[in-house]
Amino acid sequence: MSFAHRHLLGIEPLSQSDITSILDLADKYVALNRSAHKHSDALAGLTQINMFFENSTRTQASFELAGKRLGADVMNMAMGASSIKKGETLVDTALTLNAMHPDLLVVRHGSSGAVDLLAQKVNCAVLNAGDGSHEHPTQALLDALTIRRAKGRLHRLSIAICGDIAHSRVARSNIMLLGKMENRVRLIGPPTLMPSQIDEFGVEVFDDMREGLEGVDVVMMLRLQKERMDGGFIPSEREYYHRFGLTAEKLAHAKPDAIVMHPGPMNRGVEIDGEIADDVTRSVIQEQVEMGVAVRMAAMDLLARNLRESRAAAASKDTYV
Amino acid sequence: MSFAHRHLLGIEPLSQSDITSILDLADKYVALNRSAHKHSDALAGLTQINMFFENSTRTQASFELAGKRLGADVMNMAMGASSIKKGETLVDTALTLNAMHPDLLVVRHGSSGAVDLLAQKVNCAVLNAGDGSHEHPTQALLDALTIRRAKGRLHRLSIAICGDIAHSRVARSNIMLLGKMENRVRLIGPPTLMPSQIDEFGVEVFDDMREGLEGVDVVMMLRLQKERMDGGFIPSEREYYHRFGLTAEKLAHAKPDAIVMHPGPMNRGVEIDGEIADDVTRSVIQEQVEMGVAVRMAAMDLLARNLRESRAAAASKDTYV
Amino acid sequence: MSFAHRHLLGIEPLSQSDITSILDLADKYVALNRSAHKHSDALAGLTQINMFFENSTRTQASFELAGKRLGADVMNMAMGASSIKKGETLVDTALTLNAMHPDLLVVRHGSSGAVDLLAQKVNCAVLNAGDGSHEHPTQALLDALTIRRAKGRLHRLSIAICGDIAHSRVARSNIMLLGKMENRVRLIGPPTLMPSQIDEFGVEVFDDMREGLEGVDVVMMLRLQKERMDGGFIPSEREYYHRFGLTAEKLAHAKPDAIVMHPGPMNRGVEIDGEIADDVTRSVIQEQVEMGVAVRMAAMDLLARNLRESRAAAASKDTYV
Repeated sequence: MSFAHRHLLGIEPLSQSDITSILDLADKYVALNRSAHKHSDALAGLTQINMFFENSTRTQASFELAGKRLGADVMNMAMGASSIKKGETLVDTALTLNAMHPDLLVVRHGSSGAVDLLAQKVNCAVLNAGDGSHEHPTQALLDALTIRRAKGRLHRLSIAICGDIAHSRVARSNIMLLGKMENRVRLIGPPTLMPSQIDEFGVEVFDDMREGLEGVDVVMMLRLQKERMDGGFIPSEREYYHRFGLTAEKLAHAKPDAIVMHPGPMNRGVEIDGEIADDVTRSVIQEQVEMGVAVRMAAMDLLARNLRESRAAAASKDTYV
Repeated sequence: MSFAHRHLLGIEPLSQSDITSILDLADKYVALNRSAHKHSDALAGLTQINMFFENSTRTQASFELAGKRLGADVMNMAMGASSIKKGETLVDTALTLNAMHPDLLVVRHGSSGAVDLLAQKVNCAVLNAGDGSHEHPTQALLDALTIRRAKGRLHRLSIAICGDIAHSRVARSNIMLLGKMENRVRLIGPPTLMPSQIDEFGVEVFDDMREGLEGVDVVMMLRLQKERMDGGFIPSEREYYHRFGLTAEKLAHAKPDAIVMHPGPMNRGVEIDGEIADDVTRSVIQEQVEMGVAVRMAAMDLLARNLRESRAAAASKDTYV
Repeated sequence: MSFAHRHLLGIEPLSQSDITSILDLADKYVALNRSAHKHSDALAGLTQINMFFENSTRTQASFELAGKRLGADVMNMAMGASSIKKGETLVDTALTLNAMHPDLLVVRHGSSGAVDLLAQKVNCAVLNAGDGSHEHPTQALLDALTIRRAKGRLHRLSIAICGDIAHSRVARSNIMLLGKMENRVRLIGPPTLMPSQIDEFGVEVFDDMREGLEGVDVVMMLRLQKERMDGGFIPSEREYYHRFGLTAEKLAHAKPDAIVMHPGPMNRGVEIDGEIADDVTRSVIQEQVEMGVAVRMAAMDLLARNLRESRAAAASKDTYV
């Protein structure tokens, strides 16, 4: 396999071949997770620490299960109640954890770039579980695996991402991944929720759902962050649903076999109609969750292999030089 | 063994033989827990998720230890701080968890029936760790095991349950289990804390402790929920203790070898006198906690066997048909 | 090895040889933690419960990792959210936990003596993870290991402990350990933060940093508890830093190769200058964290050996008598 990175900080540094390596290995872990004995020793003898500075029951659970099923010693640290509150800096917290010799550090943080900063200070592999409005690479990878399994390929597809693009790290990571794999990406949403600089991504922008969904293979809805409404970005939930909520009528503009995605948790009746979410002939929302565990197992496995190799190389250098 | 259920949602659906199967296996796990190496691989390769929508340090700890000692990959989810708060429905939460392929799902929820609803939506075995004022089956089973070990049998005993019967899922599950095993059950408490329909259970009701305890083999005290006092059900702690608190003088009405039980945590000096709670010749309160871990190990082991069998049957059907 | 204790409640009951036994074994666990496969089975089949009545992300994490790397079944109990809040007494909580058959119980509590009390009520080995202003033995042991590895010995050193001595269990345990190992200990701090009875410890007391640091081998800074400032013990952070904060100029009074220690989390610019904390030629603050995991592994391993021996002896007595 050709995955040669030390960390998984974002989609940006990944090549097509990196992405394919992760997804191919993840397919194998999907099979393991569906089997009678869903446990391997791929990470036995290694320590995984989950540091969540922002609450996320769902993402943390996915990483925790991934590590436990691979036989790692897994520890969760609720950073809200921690030393950070005692005035310790992020870097001191990172150095403290590093001194405990973790091998895999999974970090979610409210500030864009915080995870990259942390990765520079530690000796282990760091996985970004979401940083500010920057990146959420494992979400984009699980979405990619879900699409590849549903559509049979991950290129030359037409994919619409709908909602609050500007503030969404999910959208940002997905736009990059889908672009790298040579898909056509459309962004749909109110102009107030569209990023100011979008030319760089080579995407098309729409503020009308029916136009934007016309003929697409994949409809990716985003969660509406309710705090945006207080900020004046959106008039009301009802108005938002009317214009941008995914309904059967709007979905009819997409291809007849288009799939519907959502990163969860859903606001039923706000960004998506409940019936569409539950329609298993269209919605792959549960598959996304399933792929999440598998993709995280694959990413941690690949990073652990690289870590072991680089340590073995360093040790043999120490021996011979 | 004859236990053929997919879930453990309550005592109601269990037969005498189901109950005996669980208790017999639990006896073996009591021995394991007392041994030098308290770990088996009965649940190795399986994933257990504990979803507690209501806080319960004690019950959650008991289930967590039970799973870890049986070699499962165990994950706790603090549902108070979770997606539910983000407006997700209970069913969406259940479907999300289900997509992570747990094998055993342990659920506590404040609403009666919530655990049953959840069990209909998932592919794994569900254990009810208490739902509203409905059922708390593992508590009734651990009480039963404690009685059977102390008294040498679990039938033809006279058992008094004392306190707030109306709001207690512990009482409800115990009444059903003890009735199924052919014991005589008496309920003692103030009329305001007695359920309105009790004829169906075939029990005797008393509002005088001395009368109710006359000649019983087992005295089961319930925890007084202090919020009942605000509700006008009970005049004061002092008055409650005077009338319904278990004292040496009241206990003297029971058989000389009657045992004293309490599900914990205790309000000393409210529903029970501290000296009686600590008298190891009468009180089996610590034994109840010990039996709790063993009974949960037994229940999860039996459910896991059924799960494996039904999956193997489904797989072989897929192969040959 | 000569460590014959049932619990690790403090430094006070330990002999020189006890301390050396723990540190010698900890050295081996440092090597394990730096190796490619940082997992052993020394505690396999045993149950470790961490009961933290006071929050401490860092210490709890260190004990949790220590236990998991040794193969124990580890369970954390957040006692803040627990039965204690329901009015249960500390002793009842201890007896409840004891009934679950833990082998190792790690306890932090806000009251001096609470951990000793608890240890009298249970059948397992208890480790004090900090009780009130009494003792924090694993902190003193990790400090000792850090010093021994940096200085090549743990006797006839001159060691300054600086800051809020009066309220610090870290200082108290360190003073005892360093005294037992025949070092010269100096205490530096404002008289308002100095314990009233210090003669018993055989230490020298200074209220001037430059005088106190003169010629020492080790400078141990303590964390300034900000609540002391409200109490009128300290005029202000700025004033404190001016007089007692460790700066390059003050450090110049110590030996040229003196090491700098801090138990963390640090208040940079209050009790210590950030540049000194980060100077890896002087500061061993990260090493302290690393040694913390190793020392806790060693302590739990030794206690578990004694537990197994005493149980085996009891069992063989049961058999033959």
